[in-house]
Amino acid sequence: MLKTHHCGKLTKADVGQTVTLNGWVQRRRDLGGVLFIDLRDRSGIVQIVFNPDFSGEALEVADRARNEYVLAVTGQVVERDPETFNANLATGEIEVRVTEIEVMNAAKTPPFPIEDGVDVDESLRLKYRYLDLRRPEMQKTLLLRSKAAKIFRDFLDGEQFVEVETPILTKSTPEGARDYLVPSRVHPEEFFALPQSPQIFKQLLMVGGLERYYQIARCFRDEDLRADRQPEFTQVDIETSFLAQDQLLSLMEELMVKLFRETVGAELQAPFQRITYADAMNKYGSDKPDLRFGLEMEDITDIVAGSEVKVFANVAASGGVVKALNAKGCATWSRKELDDLQPFAARYGGKGLAWVTVKEGEWRGPIVKFFKPEEIAALTERLAVEEGDLLLFSADKKKVVADVLGNLRLKIGKDLGLIDEKQFKFAWVVDFPLLGWDEEAKRYVAEHHPFTRPNEDDVHLFDSDPGQIRAQAYDLVLNGYEVGGGSMRIFKREVQEKMFGALGFSPEEAHEKFGFLLDAFEYGTPPHGGIAFGFDRLVMLLSGSTNLRETIAFPKTASATDLLSDAPSRVELSQLEQLHIRTVPKPGAKPAAAPEAAGSAAETAAKGL
Amino acid sequence: MLKTHHCGKLTKADVGQTVTLNGWVQRRRDLGGVLFIDLRDRSGIVQIVFNPDFSGEALEVADRARNEYVLAVTGQVVERDPETFNANLATGEIEVRVTEIEVMNAAKTPPFPIEDGVDVDESLRLKYRYLDLRRPEMQKTLLLRSKAAKIFRDFLDGEQFVEVETPILTKSTPEGARDYLVPSRVHPEEFFALPQSPQIFKQLLMVGGLERYYQIARCFRDEDLRADRQPEFTQVDIETSFLAQDQLLSLMEELMVKLFRETVGAELQAPFQRITYADAMNKYGSDKPDLRFGLEMEDITDIVAGSEVKVFANVAASGGVVKALNAKGCATWSRKELDDLQPFAARYGGKGLAWVTVKEGEWRGPIVKFFKPEEIAALTERLAVEEGDLLLFSADKKKVVADVLGNLRLKIGKDLGLIDEKQFKFAWVVDFPLLGWDEEAKRYVAEHHPFTRPNEDDVHLFDSDPGQIRAQAYDLVLNGYEVGGGSMRIFKREVQEKMFGALGFSPEEAHEKFGFLLDAFEYGTPPHGGIAFGFDRLVMLLSGSTNLRETIAFPKTASATDLLSDAPSRVELSQLEQLHIRTVPKPGAKPAAAPEAAGSAAETAAKGL
Repeated sequence: MLKTHHCGKLTKADVGQTVTLNGWVQRRRDLGGVLFIDLRDRSGIVQIVFNPDFSGEALEVADRARNEYVLAVTGQVVERDPETFNANLATGEIEVRVTEIEVMNAAKTPPFPIEDGVDVDESLRLKYRYLDLRRPEMQKTLLLRSKAAKIFRDFLDGEQFVEVETPILTKSTPEGARDYLVPSRVHPEEFFALPQSPQIFKQLLMVGGLERYYQIARCFRDEDLRADRQPEFTQVDIETSFLAQDQLLSLMEELMVKLFRETVGAELQAPFQRITYADAMNKYGSDKPDLRFGLEMEDITDIVAGSEVKVFANVAASGGVVKALNAKGCATWSRKELDDLQPFAARYGGKGLAWVTVKEGEWRGPIVKFFKPEEIAALTERLAVEEGDLLLFSADKKKVVADVLGNLRLKIGKDLGLIDEKQFKFAWVVDFPLLGWDEEAKRYVAEHHPFTRPNEDDVHLFDSDPGQIRAQAYDLVLNGYEVGGGSMRIFKREVQEKMFGALGFSPEEAHEKFGFLLDAFEYGTPPHGGIAFGFDRLVMLLSGSTNLRETIAFPKTASATDLLSDAPSRVELSQLEQLHIRTVPKPGAKPAAAPEAAGSAAETAAKGL
Repeated sequence: MLKTHHCGKLTKADVGQTVTLNGWVQRRRDLGGVLFIDLRDRSGIVQIVFNPDFSGEALEVADRARNEYVLAVTGQVVERDPETFNANLATGEIEVRVTEIEVMNAAKTPPFPIEDGVDVDESLRLKYRYLDLRRPEMQKTLLLRSKAAKIFRDFLDGEQFVEVETPILTKSTPEGARDYLVPSRVHPEEFFALPQSPQIFKQLLMVGGLERYYQIARCFRDEDLRADRQPEFTQVDIETSFLAQDQLLSLMEELMVKLFRETVGAELQAPFQRITYADAMNKYGSDKPDLRFGLEMEDITDIVAGSEVKVFANVAASGGVVKALNAKGCATWSRKELDDLQPFAARYGGKGLAWVTVKEGEWRGPIVKFFKPEEIAALTERLAVEEGDLLLFSADKKKVVADVLGNLRLKIGKDLGLIDEKQFKFAWVVDFPLLGWDEEAKRYVAEHHPFTRPNEDDVHLFDSDPGQIRAQAYDLVLNGYEVGGGSMRIFKREVQEKMFGALGFSPEEAHEKFGFLLDAFEYGTPPHGGIAFGFDRLVMLLSGSTNLRETIAFPKTASATDLLSDAPSRVELSQLEQLHIRTVPKPGAKPAAAPEAAGSAAETAAKGL
């Protein structure tokens, strides 16, 4: 008795038809000897009816079915009595009068109800993921993800991109995040590494003349996880030859327009706003600004450099910056609200936050008395101060001010409801710095990676002021999230040598670290560049979620545990012997038998969510 | 100077246009001061011309270019003099008169010529894969692979399959091939395993109500490699609920018809032939028979059971079989050819091969004198013996005879040119045995896996003769290769218990081995089943190759080494410390410094090809 129709697809047009349905019992009601069952499959829910008049023995069988039993039923589609129409159900105008039934399988009572919007501990949902996946909202997200992947592929295929699979068992890279390692059985004491990205392979494909490559690629980073990180994650990886940065970005904009139109029906305006890294940091204190609202910060260092507000003057004198946010209409904040700003600032490394309220035409607050009239005038103009405003000041090193006011901006934006949650506000952040100064190593390090192409106008700065060189690197930001990033790559030997020089690598060191890629670059490398999109994160934003795990069928917890399969786990000693390794107990750790260890891992994991 | 046109796409229709091309120098000829360069990009090759009359300084710049230099040129498309038409080139009727040039990059002389059909040691090709990939035949194969993936996806998407990504960091499985392991930093002494297939996850997705799943999935097996195996390989993984085996196979036939039509223009006849495992073994000695030719083997045990040919009689008496192949027209084989059959048989475990030639109406050969006239008469009829035939006999255990004559059949098929190399001959091999007897373990083992559903007509045999139970398992074979395989799965608890009983697992053992999957099965599991296609192998057959490595951008050698990146390799001790492992030198191995070890790995690998 295999399905002829899908439960959720039956409509009035099917009235009169005899159909066979397969699905799960969503719920059952017995109304005076007539049994109503909501039967669910992937397509949705339909009401099936068992009545002694037409169901015969099928009623008795159905009567034994409980929630999540798998049923096969045959019956006739009939229109419901209009009074019993269910407007909440796509199939709400019809029902199926069952004449035959087969219980395909029984089910124990599930540990949580299989329905949307249930408030269930996430670790329980992950342990029973196969039940969690039955919930319509989880299925919707997985279908959205599948569709998004198809849209990416169709677009890229239409633009002559070749999908190429790059290795998962690859070589450990000397720089970057921590690698997952895989011991080799054939080559004792040697290891593969799982790729953090296909970066080197995609550049080699360009050397190989493929010109346009893409892959929806699994990547791996053994880092301590945050809420929006997974140890294995998926990126849409793209590389092109013979394209200028602007051409590539335009093409990617077309891709985003198609993706958002065909998944969520949003019409994006291309070209997207382009904002330099310097501007983003100055105005929003972030290289991934949420541009759905304004509330830009203003640099007032010049105004307050000679101020009687000592902390401002001192910071200005020592090379720091003073910046302000004007929180419109927030002069009404309570003293407690204002006091709470201090620990908030501290969380981001700030020593404090000064504030001024503007009430009844008057500036109020602890620091107001130190302002000179001309400072107030200048601030009024620069910050467009009006009645009812709350001015918030941070004075510190540039980075600290950016963090404090950037995060404060986001908090105020949310609190004041300045954010249109339905909007998808894209922007390219461009002109990232090529190099950053590593205070510890006392040398420059690559901000993106050592193959990022410098802006051609800035190449002369390698000899004078490398920290000022802008990179041909770009991030795509959406509503405060980085959803993609990439760069044009260095393809000329002399530029690469300057870059290694700036990083303090001798030719020998460079070769040791990047040997085969540098070799490859000797044989006619085309100008090339690319981008990678964070696929999990894009799907998360498309689905309106803020939890990356909701977009992944079988995710791991924040402690990198799979609660369903209980991985990682202990293995047989013989397996380790074949791999020429042995384990080293953590100092002070209790030697634990396999099951206990697994149990404690699961616990840690659950806590770690 | 970025490309406005693709080299290989220019035709007479473009004559008169000014175009900018980017590409690699394929070759250059100087004919009396006029320089001709074949410029190559992914689309193909076009001739560009530098002439003092129109090229000016560009000629001097071009004169310094060597093979594999990357050039950007601008010029006018002109029709060639008909006498210089090049019929071998798609662009052979035109050329581009260059007025501007930019050398985008120089190139060292490549270690082998960048052209098709070159006879280069494969290990050199793999070390310089980025150059090997520039060869048109490699690009053609990668494009074919990309296209094949798209066809799979488009078809499955159209049939409402959801693409779901399953984890790569997963749990080590107790049965099956050897796992690649990944030590966990967060959970000391615990390991992830790379999946041998997404088998368990795809079944969980069916429990989760996804109904139709697919994934083009990377899989990993740490096995000793044969020519057509890779440590990481790609399979098109499919699982469905609420479909009967026949429905699934029909759908997959449609998929293959589409794939072969749209890639190589072959029109497959569906439905494909279905042959039982028993018939395949009996007639072809193989569960993946090449059906492009006949040459079926015949069982003659009954005829020769009482023969004076003692080896035949003895084998028949001891439960073995005697089978024969009739190699039509091969009576002309030389004595040497006949003698060479003996080591051939030995290679497959045979003790020898008896032969008879039929020449001038007479049976000849060492054993002929022992045949009784009625045996010759019976054999003549069963083997359809005619003048000029060569009869080949193998007598041994069933398995040995199958191996010897099965391989001999393939060899003769090839030698005699019986195989139409252009044909794609598909068949389903069905009714595999569910269980095989493991002589060592003295118990039954699952031939496919422990969740394979038995044929419903055979379930009663669990109690009497488990070895006779046929499985609802199927392989898709093409020209002697297994290109896909799968099964319907057990979804009823009582059948699963019988299966575990037959395998000799107690309920506790079963739970220890397959715990979370068995738990999942308790909650309303739908009837389900699936298949996986070997994607690398399918692409290999589509591209007409016999080497799996030709279909993979960055393959590994038979000793699981990547000659390009030199993976696996030694890693920093600090990396191992973080992972709570240490290495154990192989007994007797010389402790080697990292670079030496890497070198020797590459050597081993090169030998291992």
